[in-house]
Amino acid sequence: MRPFLSHPFDDDKLKEECGVFGVIGVADAANFVALGLHALQHRGQEAGGIVSYDPEQGFNSARRFGYVRDNFTKADVMDTLPGELAIGHVRYSTAGSKGATAIRDVQPFFGEFSMGGAAIAHNGNLTNAAALRRELIERGSIFQSSSDSECIIHLMARSIQKTIPERIKDALRRVEGAFSVVAMTRTKLIGVRDPLGVRPLVLGRIGDHGWALSSETCGLDIIGADFIREIDPGEMVVIENNKVDSFRPFSPAKSRFCIFEHVYFSRPDSILGGRSVYETRRQIGVELAREAPVEADLVCPVPDSGTPAAIGFAAESGIPFGLGITRNQYMGRTFIEPTEQIRNMGVRLKLNVNRALIKGKRVILVDDSVVRGTTSRKIKDMILDAGAAEVHFRIASPPTAWPCFYGVDTPERSKLLAATMSEDEMRDWIGVDSLKFISLDGLYRAAGEAAGRDAANPRYCDACFSGDYPVAPSDKIEEGFQMKAAE
Amino acid sequence: MRPFLSHPFDDDKLKEECGVFGVIGVADAANFVALGLHALQHRGQEAGGIVSYDPEQGFNSARRFGYVRDNFTKADVMDTLPGELAIGHVRYSTAGSKGATAIRDVQPFFGEFSMGGAAIAHNGNLTNAAALRRELIERGSIFQSSSDSECIIHLMARSIQKTIPERIKDALRRVEGAFSVVAMTRTKLIGVRDPLGVRPLVLGRIGDHGWALSSETCGLDIIGADFIREIDPGEMVVIENNKVDSFRPFSPAKSRFCIFEHVYFSRPDSILGGRSVYETRRQIGVELAREAPVEADLVCPVPDSGTPAAIGFAAESGIPFGLGITRNQYMGRTFIEPTEQIRNMGVRLKLNVNRALIKGKRVILVDDSVVRGTTSRKIKDMILDAGAAEVHFRIASPPTAWPCFYGVDTPERSKLLAATMSEDEMRDWIGVDSLKFISLDGLYRAAGEAAGRDAANPRYCDACFSGDYPVAPSDKIEEGFQMKAAE
Amino acid sequence: MRPFLSHPFDDDKLKEECGVFGVIGVADAANFVALGLHALQHRGQEAGGIVSYDPEQGFNSARRFGYVRDNFTKADVMDTLPGELAIGHVRYSTAGSKGATAIRDVQPFFGEFSMGGAAIAHNGNLTNAAALRRELIERGSIFQSSSDSECIIHLMARSIQKTIPERIKDALRRVEGAFSVVAMTRTKLIGVRDPLGVRPLVLGRIGDHGWALSSETCGLDIIGADFIREIDPGEMVVIENNKVDSFRPFSPAKSRFCIFEHVYFSRPDSILGGRSVYETRRQIGVELAREAPVEADLVCPVPDSGTPAAIGFAAESGIPFGLGITRNQYMGRTFIEPTEQIRNMGVRLKLNVNRALIKGKRVILVDDSVVRGTTSRKIKDMILDAGAAEVHFRIASPPTAWPCFYGVDTPERSKLLAATMSEDEMRDWIGVDSLKFISLDGLYRAAGEAAGRDAANPRYCDACFSGDYPVAPSDKIEEGFQMKAAE
Amino acid sequence: MRPFLSHPFDDDKLKEECGVFGVIGVADAANFVALGLHALQHRGQEAGGIVSYDPEQGFNSARRFGYVRDNFTKADVMDTLPGELAIGHVRYSTAGSKGATAIRDVQPFFGEFSMGGAAIAHNGNLTNAAALRRELIERGSIFQSSSDSECIIHLMARSIQKTIPERIKDALRRVEGAFSVVAMTRTKLIGVRDPLGVRPLVLGRIGDHGWALSSETCGLDIIGADFIREIDPGEMVVIENNKVDSFRPFSPAKSRFCIFEHVYFSRPDSILGGRSVYETRRQIGVELAREAPVEADLVCPVPDSGTPAAIGFAAESGIPFGLGITRNQYMGRTFIEPTEQIRNMGVRLKLNVNRALIKGKRVILVDDSVVRGTTSRKIKDMILDAGAAEVHFRIASPPTAWPCFYGVDTPERSKLLAATMSEDEMRDWIGVDSLKFISLDGLYRAAGEAAGRDAANPRYCDACFSGDYPVAPSDKIEEGFQMKAAE
Repeated sequence: MRPFLSHPFDDDKLKEECGVFGVIGVADAANFVALGLHALQHRGQEAGGIVSYDPEQGFNSARRFGYVRDNFTKADVMDTLPGELAIGHVRYSTAGSKGATAIRDVQPFFGEFSMGGAAIAHNGNLTNAAALRRELIERGSIFQSSSDSECIIHLMARSIQKTIPERIKDALRRVEGAFSVVAMTRTKLIGVRDPLGVRPLVLGRIGDHGWALSSETCGLDIIGADFIREIDPGEMVVIENNKVDSFRPFSPAKSRFCIFEHVYFSRPDSILGGRSVYETRRQIGVELAREAPVEADLVCPVPDSGTPAAIGFAAESGIPFGLGITRNQYMGRTFIEPTEQIRNMGVRLKLNVNRALIKGKRVILVDDSVVRGTTSRKIKDMILDAGAAEVHFRIASPPTAWPCFYGVDTPERSKLLAATMSEDEMRDWIGVDSLKFISLDGLYRAAGEAAGRDAANPRYCDACFSGDYPVAPSDKIEEGFQMKAAE
Repeated sequence: MRPFLSHPFDDDKLKEECGVFGVIGVADAANFVALGLHALQHRGQEAGGIVSYDPEQGFNSARRFGYVRDNFTKADVMDTLPGELAIGHVRYSTAGSKGATAIRDVQPFFGEFSMGGAAIAHNGNLTNAAALRRELIERGSIFQSSSDSECIIHLMARSIQKTIPERIKDALRRVEGAFSVVAMTRTKLIGVRDPLGVRPLVLGRIGDHGWALSSETCGLDIIGADFIREIDPGEMVVIENNKVDSFRPFSPAKSRFCIFEHVYFSRPDSILGGRSVYETRRQIGVELAREAPVEADLVCPVPDSGTPAAIGFAAESGIPFGLGITRNQYMGRTFIEPTEQIRNMGVRLKLNVNRALIKGKRVILVDDSVVRGTTSRKIKDMILDAGAAEVHFRIASPPTAWPCFYGVDTPERSKLLAATMSEDEMRDWIGVDSLKFISLDGLYRAAGEAAGRDAANPRYCDACFSGDYPVAPSDKIEEGFQMKAAE
Repeated sequence: MRPFLSHPFDDDKLKEECGVFGVIGVADAANFVALGLHALQHRGQEAGGIVSYDPEQGFNSARRFGYVRDNFTKADVMDTLPGELAIGHVRYSTAGSKGATAIRDVQPFFGEFSMGGAAIAHNGNLTNAAALRRELIERGSIFQSSSDSECIIHLMARSIQKTIPERIKDALRRVEGAFSVVAMTRTKLIGVRDPLGVRPLVLGRIGDHGWALSSETCGLDIIGADFIREIDPGEMVVIENNKVDSFRPFSPAKSRFCIFEHVYFSRPDSILGGRSVYETRRQIGVELAREAPVEADLVCPVPDSGTPAAIGFAAESGIPFGLGITRNQYMGRTFIEPTEQIRNMGVRLKLNVNRALIKGKRVILVDDSVVRGTTSRKIKDMILDAGAAEVHFRIASPPTAWPCFYGVDTPERSKLLAATMSEDEMRDWIGVDSLKFISLDGLYRAAGEAAGRDAANPRYCDACFSGDYPVAPSDKIEEGFQMKAAE
Repeated sequence: MRPFLSHPFDDDKLKEECGVFGVIGVADAANFVALGLHALQHRGQEAGGIVSYDPEQGFNSARRFGYVRDNFTKADVMDTLPGELAIGHVRYSTAGSKGATAIRDVQPFFGEFSMGGAAIAHNGNLTNAAALRRELIERGSIFQSSSDSECIIHLMARSIQKTIPERIKDALRRVEGAFSVVAMTRTKLIGVRDPLGVRPLVLGRIGDHGWALSSETCGLDIIGADFIREIDPGEMVVIENNKVDSFRPFSPAKSRFCIFEHVYFSRPDSILGGRSVYETRRQIGVELAREAPVEADLVCPVPDSGTPAAIGFAAESGIPFGLGITRNQYMGRTFIEPTEQIRNMGVRLKLNVNRALIKGKRVILVDDSVVRGTTSRKIKDMILDAGAAEVHFRIASPPTAWPCFYGVDTPERSKLLAATMSEDEMRDWIGVDSLKFISLDGLYRAAGEAAGRDAANPRYCDACFSGDYPVAPSDKIEEGFQMKAAE
């Protein structure tokens, strides 16, 4: 058997682990959920699932590996998901089950309780899931998946509350970490955000009778729903009979929205925390051009996420903007590798350089982040190979030096380039003429905080840059993770 | 059964019908062909096929509907295609068999002759295929497909020449129209371009022993092959034993390369006729900004093909460039439509508007072409709906007023907006503040002809704009097509 | 959509609901399990599952709808089931989930406990499962299936015993009804039969180090294992390190093996309760010929299960034996029905009559049982249509007048022909010249009880004939089922 | 990859290569054809195909590997085959393409001629196909398959006749060998048998307007059609507008129906040449008991084809008949072999011995034929292993000493046991107490020729037993096959 060639660059990105979507009050709700999940596909591409409820057909579910477009667009699947109430989930594999994700790990999770069934879908990560799981198994719960999110439904099953919304509150008060949850009973659509509001969740309206919950506003746009508002950090909404009730089941806390959602995870056409993601990214480019100017002939984005920052950089610096790297829009998972010899010749499955544009030029490459740095080296090679005179990297985020424990798939700390090297060392290791990251203050300015980061009371969760974790990662600490020493 | 929602915009583009690729002299040649076809996927997304030859296993073939990445990446398919010699093809359905394409219509076609087998793959369209087919059937040939390209292999079977290259010459001298052909015998890889060179075909080198033929240079880039040269219009190359022989089987003619390859069909990172496609497109934007300037706040491309022209327009005009329309990168074929009601609310499967960017602005939209005009209306609606103050369309090609008979899937003439309306009428029908197409001379200037179009001796085939058909479409004329009256 | 034609006769048979198989101590144990399940396929054709354990790969499972031969013969499935320990299950749908069986209902069931994982597969039916399920859900267990057998694994999860075998004992002491269970931990293969031993379970030896548990001896034969002995009613065996330990976890009881296993369910080449199934069936034919002789020209079995009894009837009566009805050996599930008109002409998908043999003859048809009687009518029509002079039915079991609650899929009582008609009424309703069932005493004699049935202390469970239920069906009584009045 | 275990016995049977079926004059004709092919599945299990014609939808075809029941029972396939006229084919691979059959080799074959399309399906084998194929390729025909039957459609394409029936006559006059052909145009169903009538073909009537052609009468029974008559050797029938016209396109010849159809190929419930196949087989048993009696305790058929002869042998000899060998009715293609060690222990996938019945008995095994003899050895081992006191083989056909060239898949002559050994040598090689074949005269008597075989003018083709080939196998002679020397 010939070996397979994985995507050269995909393992060098932080990956959002999930997107959630729910709809109530419209016929064929599952079709809306499929559309919403399709718009959220960038948040999780490994698998997806939908649960729907119909008074006559009861609860139904479908869970599939692969893209929404390939699974939840066929009548033979969608016809099994009738009803006016449905929720769904798209996911990457979590670190724990890498390469061994079974279909039983695919959410939403479903439980039959004495007062009826309920399904939940979870975006985020629970920092005390391992301890909870141990305790639940000892008390007789049988886990069906390797997913930590399954704890929530078992906690609900063991709650002595009489209604499912109350059981959800009970359960979520026991968990720690980041969670945006969408849940459903036979009559209610429910949405909850953790007290810090690390992951996004928004509310939309579909016509006169329908409502939607979505990780991002782009999920509302695709179905023509109106964006009503964000679910607040620490808020729980229960939607039933065309009415939205709001609860605050948790102790109040200062919100700490994930700043990396603005940098990379979210779609540029989404509005998060009242700000346009596209505009934040473009503004990062403007800040970068001010913080780290350089003489050059071309500002070229690393596709696709670097594009808005590159536009901002070009506008601020006056250097022409051009698409020097072309992305293959038909990219799929893997290709069989031709031969060993060819691998070393540099197969370019995903990206191709526009040689005619690059040749002889001093090129500024704008990328969103540097994780392991391996991608940056390969792109530099491609650009030099095409005849560039100079290569300057400008990175639209500060150095990523700490792992995320709130729902993002990060390499362990020792694999993060910025955890082991200074900016100059990184520049030399990548092999470019210059390398500059935006400062943390610059990033905050681009994200709307004119004064930069308030160290005493930062508006965002920026633990991946700062090591300042707003929720202690207790499972990880038990496993031996070393927090940043107090300064 | 609920109805399906087709892509709102896909039926409003001209579609290239084919891409061809061939490799000789490297182990597992079919894997290289798969990669090459993947890079050429934009030329045909409906189906693909590969034929390979191995001295022990003989000729083998695999033909599949769908993307290359989904079919020709699996060991169970690729292991059936051994050998150091392989050719492949990607295709759209032709007008004739719309909606009824059978797998037997998927190329390459294969024939067993008394001197051995041969396979051919064809990009282009034969304008006398119907007449040839009638004649061949009357003489006892059995067609296996509804594809006109099958005529070539039957003409070869009936040739009295002793070698397959000579039979190919015999066959191609009988056909009329546009063809870039890649063919193979047990030992030879063969490439031919029609005398006018309407469709592209390029030659590349893989390491020391291998050779490749590809519709575009981007197919060479993906496998790390070096671009050697274009196959000349009217040239036939025969590659065997690491040697390339060149023949001129046809009467000499002035070349007429398809100018629409530059405008839309080809990938921006390809080099065609010695020119960078990206640069031609950017230059079209520059020309447009000169020919049809307008006061505005934002230059916004219609993704993705309008982007280089929009960059050029912005640079020339000094108006800021911004991504006001976001394309869903996970787009697939079809989604089940939620309900009738929702369809009218404007489901946005493929494109979404960045409202924050558009709102209140005077927007210049740069698109590559207008075919039926239906897409332009929808995009205008989306932009206005997002709060734009003004909408100005700038089109990177002249009005498309005539169908193509040389391998492009065009609506019949009466469906082409420009065939029935003036520019002003089109503007009003689309409902925008202004609409301007680049002039034919402007397009020629952008494509490197400083003097514009030489009407007596045009360098390109521009029949879709001018009605000036370099090869008479004899089958179509027999069916009743009216050529443009001599002026 | 044209309607589908179901098999004309399949809904008129009692159906065994399950077969179980387990193997320990041989490489690639799952392959042995697949073979064993294949030999037990007659006990359940809807779906099958296998769980295996390997020290490096942990527990793995595969569950599929359809035949063993179509699912558990492919390397891509079997390679995912490594290890020297495996159990498996084949099943019909249970009455409760008819037509809605989900893959999650397919056994074995698996649970992760604090002392490690365990899997179980269950043949039989629990008569108090509904009550147990209600109780478990109220206490916080989450059921993943609609299968009553899942209760066992949840009872195990809630046991406070320290080892899995002890937890199995705990759990099985809570359930009522019929069960032959095969279970596994990381190191042990476990087999248990209920105190009455209603369903079979046998122990076999594979070479010097391996052991197998199988519902029937034919499962041992297929893998070349030696039949060691039956598991006793009320016995639990635990096999580990090539050693078999025996336990008696239940209160002692008189055994009541299902007599219908001899009549129809089991394979004729199996040995059950020390008796050859084939010989019992042949002897039933001998008894029938004595109890209900008739003058005729041909003894013809209704294929395939009536054949041994027909051989016995022919031998005892001296009337020639002949295959008057041919069974299509390639029969599958369903064929699309040609037209309404044709259905009434008598499509013969499954059986065909050998007209040349039947014509003009007085025919004795020997069948195993009469359930609804619809099949008997159709077969009578076929035989008369072929020109038989007389048709006499002889049935190798007493009238089936009561449903089974111990693991057999029986129609509700009102659908059983013998529950509503006398023998003469049945004869007239079916429309044959004579119809005779073997007596209950005759059946016991054929099954080795020379004195016939001891009413005070019957050796077998014969509730389907006698209404004498050895375990009260408590769930059904709660639903309203009326037991036979005491006489 | 672990090796696969093929069926232990399947490679030791002669295999019929094809069955054909056609229907005209009923709605959804393809559904009838599917049913007919299902009844003919024993004639070819590798693949099947159906072509239908509908005035609006034109010709449509579907070809699939595997059983009819698995492919031509699904709405998504059958809905693509509309119309009142359809033909179909089931096939084994031919010797030439063993293991490499492509879907393009699956019949019916289709050709578009100037007067319209036609499809044909062929049962039999052409003895001059290789020469014809060479000639056709030299003249410019392109073969799409490796099947010799494709010659017929190319000969039709090159005929200068004006109608398709006339072109079929032209084509079939050029071929030699055995053929029963079913063909269709847009309005006609056509059936032809070769002058010797080697393969069967029968005509049936469906209601008042429909007609069917089938290889055997069992294909008529399944759809409830009435058997009208056999197509005569050398006859061509053309059915159109509910009218059957008969033609005699060939020179008259004495008929030579294949006697092995009676011995093994055909289904026992079919009527061939006016005789019941079942009755012929039973009578073979009677003759065998007379020719080769032996003292014993049990007559046991080798399932399934030996059963009727065993019934006849038991009746004639007075020795009890019993089912000592059980066949697994769920047998599929292949199972992964557990381990090398197990293979040698005797995995019994297909057959199992009923030990309780065999033990201590003198057993007469009745089988239909001996080809390589490997099966006979294995069955002998199974029977002895079960404790039989003596084993006597009685074979329901004479020694198979010559290959068939008329449509049966036979090993080459050197692999036929009877070609290299005397009866006594075979007995010793197989290792049984006695081995007797029926004589050729005895076989003819059982097949209705009271006087035995008339050597000067035999009624049947018995070349596999006698080496007397009624049509010279010209392709094979060219390859070096030695005919039997004149005596």
